[in-house]
Amino acid sequence: MQSYKLNNGVEGFEFGTPIDTGALLEKGTPEKIDFKEKMAVGKITTLEFELLPKDRIYGLGEHLGSMNRRGKRLRSYCRDEANHTEDKNELYGAHNFFVHVKEQEQTGFFIDFPGEVVYDTGFQDDKRFTIEIHGKDFRLIKIPGNSIEEIVSRFLQVAGKAYIPPKWAFGYFQSRWGYKDVAEINGVYERFQQEDLPLDGIYLDLDYMEDFKNFTVSRQRFPKFKEFVAKLKRDGVYLVPIIDAGVKIEPDYDIYEEGLAGNHFCLNAQGNPYVAAVWPGKVHFPDFLQSKTRKWFGEKYQFLTDLGIEGVWNDMNEPAIFYDEKNLEEAVDLASDCRGKNLNVHKFFELKDTFANLLNDEDYHQRFYHRIQGKKHPHREVHNLYGDYMTRAANYGLQKHLNKRFLLISRASSIGMHRYGGIWTGDNASWWSHLEENIRMMPSINMCGFYYIGADTGGFGGQCSGELLTRWLQFSAFTPLLRNHSALDTRPQEPYAFSQEVLENTRSILKGRYRLIPYLYSTYMKAVEEYQLFFKPLAFDYGEGYQEIEDQLFIGEEIMLAPIHKKNQSQRLVDLPEKMARITLTDQETEMSLAPAGPQKLSYDLDHLRFFLRENKMIPLGKSAKNVSKLSMKKLEVLAYITNQGEHVFYDDDGISLGNKEKNLMKIRIKSREDFYDIEVKNPHKELETIDFKIINDNGRIQKISYRVKT
Amino acid sequence: MQSYKLNNGVEGFEFGTPIDTGALLEKGTPEKIDFKEKMAVGKITTLEFELLPKDRIYGLGEHLGSMNRRGKRLRSYCRDEANHTEDKNELYGAHNFFVHVKEQEQTGFFIDFPGEVVYDTGFQDDKRFTIEIHGKDFRLIKIPGNSIEEIVSRFLQVAGKAYIPPKWAFGYFQSRWGYKDVAEINGVYERFQQEDLPLDGIYLDLDYMEDFKNFTVSRQRFPKFKEFVAKLKRDGVYLVPIIDAGVKIEPDYDIYEEGLAGNHFCLNAQGNPYVAAVWPGKVHFPDFLQSKTRKWFGEKYQFLTDLGIEGVWNDMNEPAIFYDEKNLEEAVDLASDCRGKNLNVHKFFELKDTFANLLNDEDYHQRFYHRIQGKKHPHREVHNLYGDYMTRAANYGLQKHLNKRFLLISRASSIGMHRYGGIWTGDNASWWSHLEENIRMMPSINMCGFYYIGADTGGFGGQCSGELLTRWLQFSAFTPLLRNHSALDTRPQEPYAFSQEVLENTRSILKGRYRLIPYLYSTYMKAVEEYQLFFKPLAFDYGEGYQEIEDQLFIGEEIMLAPIHKKNQSQRLVDLPEKMARITLTDQETEMSLAPAGPQKLSYDLDHLRFFLRENKMIPLGKSAKNVSKLSMKKLEVLAYITNQGEHVFYDDDGISLGNKEKNLMKIRIKSREDFYDIEVKNPHKELETIDFKIINDNGRIQKISYRVKT
Repeated sequence: MQSYKLNNGVEGFEFGTPIDTGALLEKGTPEKIDFKEKMAVGKITTLEFELLPKDRIYGLGEHLGSMNRRGKRLRSYCRDEANHTEDKNELYGAHNFFVHVKEQEQTGFFIDFPGEVVYDTGFQDDKRFTIEIHGKDFRLIKIPGNSIEEIVSRFLQVAGKAYIPPKWAFGYFQSRWGYKDVAEINGVYERFQQEDLPLDGIYLDLDYMEDFKNFTVSRQRFPKFKEFVAKLKRDGVYLVPIIDAGVKIEPDYDIYEEGLAGNHFCLNAQGNPYVAAVWPGKVHFPDFLQSKTRKWFGEKYQFLTDLGIEGVWNDMNEPAIFYDEKNLEEAVDLASDCRGKNLNVHKFFELKDTFANLLNDEDYHQRFYHRIQGKKHPHREVHNLYGDYMTRAANYGLQKHLNKRFLLISRASSIGMHRYGGIWTGDNASWWSHLEENIRMMPSINMCGFYYIGADTGGFGGQCSGELLTRWLQFSAFTPLLRNHSALDTRPQEPYAFSQEVLENTRSILKGRYRLIPYLYSTYMKAVEEYQLFFKPLAFDYGEGYQEIEDQLFIGEEIMLAPIHKKNQSQRLVDLPEKMARITLTDQETEMSLAPAGPQKLSYDLDHLRFFLRENKMIPLGKSAKNVSKLSMKKLEVLAYITNQGEHVFYDDDGISLGNKEKNLMKIRIKSREDFYDIEVKNPHKELETIDFKIINDNGRIQKISYRVKT
Repeated sequence: MQSYKLNNGVEGFEFGTPIDTGALLEKGTPEKIDFKEKMAVGKITTLEFELLPKDRIYGLGEHLGSMNRRGKRLRSYCRDEANHTEDKNELYGAHNFFVHVKEQEQTGFFIDFPGEVVYDTGFQDDKRFTIEIHGKDFRLIKIPGNSIEEIVSRFLQVAGKAYIPPKWAFGYFQSRWGYKDVAEINGVYERFQQEDLPLDGIYLDLDYMEDFKNFTVSRQRFPKFKEFVAKLKRDGVYLVPIIDAGVKIEPDYDIYEEGLAGNHFCLNAQGNPYVAAVWPGKVHFPDFLQSKTRKWFGEKYQFLTDLGIEGVWNDMNEPAIFYDEKNLEEAVDLASDCRGKNLNVHKFFELKDTFANLLNDEDYHQRFYHRIQGKKHPHREVHNLYGDYMTRAANYGLQKHLNKRFLLISRASSIGMHRYGGIWTGDNASWWSHLEENIRMMPSINMCGFYYIGADTGGFGGQCSGELLTRWLQFSAFTPLLRNHSALDTRPQEPYAFSQEVLENTRSILKGRYRLIPYLYSTYMKAVEEYQLFFKPLAFDYGEGYQEIEDQLFIGEEIMLAPIHKKNQSQRLVDLPEKMARITLTDQETEMSLAPAGPQKLSYDLDHLRFFLRENKMIPLGKSAKNVSKLSMKKLEVLAYITNQGEHVFYDDDGISLGNKEKNLMKIRIKSREDFYDIEVKNPHKELETIDFKIINDNGRIQKISYRVKT
């Protein structure tokens, strides 16, 4: 074992000869440190911690279930999991960072390993937390700290600064698998204009391609694509096409031919390109673990940037595999064997399950290989890097050809990828429980380095109701990535696809989102820059009595959300850890009142955003606009709850340049002085002319002050 | 259309020539009544109601989701649904009773129809409630009332008195699919004794049979079965075997031969017995819609009663069908076609889905026929009666051969069957959300006539944790049917299968249950006799502000439950519609304190039962015992919250005889008079010697009074 000292007391331990995953920025300085954890290294290495009754565990990123991960069995092994029921042990991401919180202390751990890791956080034995690392070559990072937040912040520092999207990526995006041609996409765009719904972009699912081939655009269904992209972009609306991991096997298809010629594809045991089947039928998988392949594939995104594209989503990159030839043949053989027989129950279920299990059978992962610095590695050993490295490739190409910020999200991910792109939480469903999962999952993912995150609002699979879409938007109005996406053959899910009421309510909510964008963008940028969380569980700030609350959370330092996530509910119970101001926000209006500490009922109508503002905090609001490009900073409204004094740092920049060009940090200070307030605005935003302050004090009295900014 | 007047203003409307489903007790007296609803009769008859913003809908029995059924699409079509995700439109039961609640009035409806009925309660259009009845021959019952409860009670009166199980059926039952032989069952029994866990019985899943053949017992695995049954029964422990709907096709198997000879099986289009495959491989389905078949099959239960059995569960009686020969052959043909081909995505999913959809394909329902009074009916038309009528058959046979009460539950059901047996809610999973579903589902099912109900505690499918089992028991300690059941190959789920803490906590909870049995049994019997609900939503008693609460509910008139149904939570928010007494119950102890009206935090440890007692109400508690046969009535503890006066009627009988033999109605009156209480006990239970009263007043002062009953 080698040990290393990193910044801030962070310790690194290297066992065996780990593959360099690139998860962290640096390895640290060699220094002899005792390794005190209980560990048994072997083919499967086990690490074991004692669990005391009040211990809690936070982190582990993209998993279903409670924020406190205790009592579960969770597996880090990226999986195309289409059915997010609560018993699922893995989703698309592999995020090996967690904080073990004890009554008197807390410690963070990161397991830097590209293969399978299984966490039993007290499921089998409620007194033991065991971790199985499927290998003997890995790094272990141990992070001390005086608080959970301090540990997280230290981890984020060693993991490196998160991906920063353009400001337009904070707008609302419409999407649907099934928008079949340019006329339909244009129809969506026009309908948004007609209905006065804000829109920053439309995602293109795989139907825009020619036969599901990456870096092609269907000539028949998307003629004059470049002109169409330009037309929408002139109005501030971006098209965001999908790219899948698999490359269609088709002679004369340039990507296929180049991949073969350049030796870019993953190989089978015989050394030939491995064949699997996904959307296009049979494909090869680019070996993104080869740096030359990342460069080659990354360059291909130029095909899109040349068309005017500035945003991409990388999909199916766990990688998802529908079947491979071997398994399909075995399944067909089994079916043939069953012909005409009286199958007993065991034989019948074997038959049925054999076909069901073709989809994403993990056996495939032992049939293909990567080359890392010339050495062959079975896919299984490095599985969790695949989507991550595809996204690094995309980031490389997009940055090179755009030389500005771009929208880039990926379905599969591991820690390290957070520096290159964001993630959406995959194929959820139009289930109320998935709205609740969305709420709970955001802080866990954020802790693992990802900031540009969000779920498919309204749910991808299944039939969404107008009520569910509305309630979901009331939450995702606060997530950096805000996308309404749905699957083929499901009920249409655009804000205008339901009743007039739903249209009016969602319009009001979306306009509320656009009023929040200056604040959300500022909070995002500050959080990334300062290694702080954008989403934070109540448990990180409060102790006993509040640490179990998991359907309320903080945005930045200012806002507490308590969304409705159940059907047919116009109110819910909320537990306030301290007195806060209750804010109601619509397109034009804001209302403020005080809410006492403790349990209380919160009414929450369908037509507005309602949230809480913490004491001595303030948030700036802009004016809604049809998209981010049209947001104005001339006039801000600042809502503040001031009992003593508060200071707010408001970040802005040009929203598109690399390197935070035209960065501005405006400081707003409010000090309560008996009957009046001292207000100071330092370093005002260059466009700003007026701030309308609305300040509530401890007695609930609201004072409105219009402040003319001298420039 | 014919119209009829029933009791209490209930109206009946008969359209076409309905099949007599036997759902209700009587048809009513012919009387001309206008039919005012909006209806279009046809191949599919549609009935339409306007929905106003505050309208709510309660009832429809066994469905997932909110108690207020508004905004859903729910289908009455019994289905073997193994995956209870919230998008599922149907489960095992078809319960066509609901109450439409408007701001100023409410009306109940029952659709007496044996085929498919689809309810769109404002999902497609939030202003319209549409019902599709798949036929033109049906009865419609309309029930007026001044409250939801009054409507429900009137419906229960026309539907007839519910099934009454023996008192021992209120005990705790252990079950597991996978207990393979008599040694294992005996091991479970002995372990319960060793661990001092109460137990009233063990369910036997299909492994007790010989090759899944109904009315057989495996000689190899269950030798000397009769002696074993007797041995356990001497100790007050009952064995409850399963019976499935399908009869194995096997020459010389008596049930098969008799069924053929007696013309008892459902026929295919050619008039031969229809062949489907279920657990035993190929089977025929008894045509339970023939009265001669019900009699024949009912008599077969004598095989079990002769062995000493007094309880049965009827399973797979939707009926579940794994495959039939036609579909299996088509699937195999499709697989053969795919051999060696490069399947594109559409072809691949067609192949995979074809095999998945073999299970319970509804096409099968058009391939077999019933004979009702000599007339042939496709199964589809009368599908929802199948499990119902199987259970009527079992009830007939068991009653005839036992001549006392027996335990009888069924998986499939429709209204009418409630007079013949209870239901468990089928193949749920070890998901926290299914505990919540259990809470929400109980009142909806109870409204439809079923009282002996409960879910598989701990969850049938998936991996249960000790915490989930414990929390689930804290709720199902109050459900009449209390069974812990789990599936083959899941984690063992007996109370002793986890840690020592889980064993101690569940023991304490189960003993608490046994202390509650006198109250629960009394409440059950009174509710059935008086056509009142055992489980009641808060919305039935309280208006605005409380009517949306769906994770708290009432038991009888006395108790309000507010169970914890989330992981890693030691407390939850509760909303009290009025001031109540908070009760904590363990094996030996009871604690009482006052809880104010309104939202508040409730701590709920894992080792006790905690619930609320309403004002001027009381509950009697017994002493726990190892099973119901050993419960003593010599001494009762009465917990009361009295601010003025309260009266409690306590029901008891011998718990086993038909016709409520030795029925006793004891009346306990407590009247608060300044500093003391007047206590009166009328018609005391014959075994009763002492009542220990613990009375809390409005100031939280507790008075203990030991009351010696004069007999």
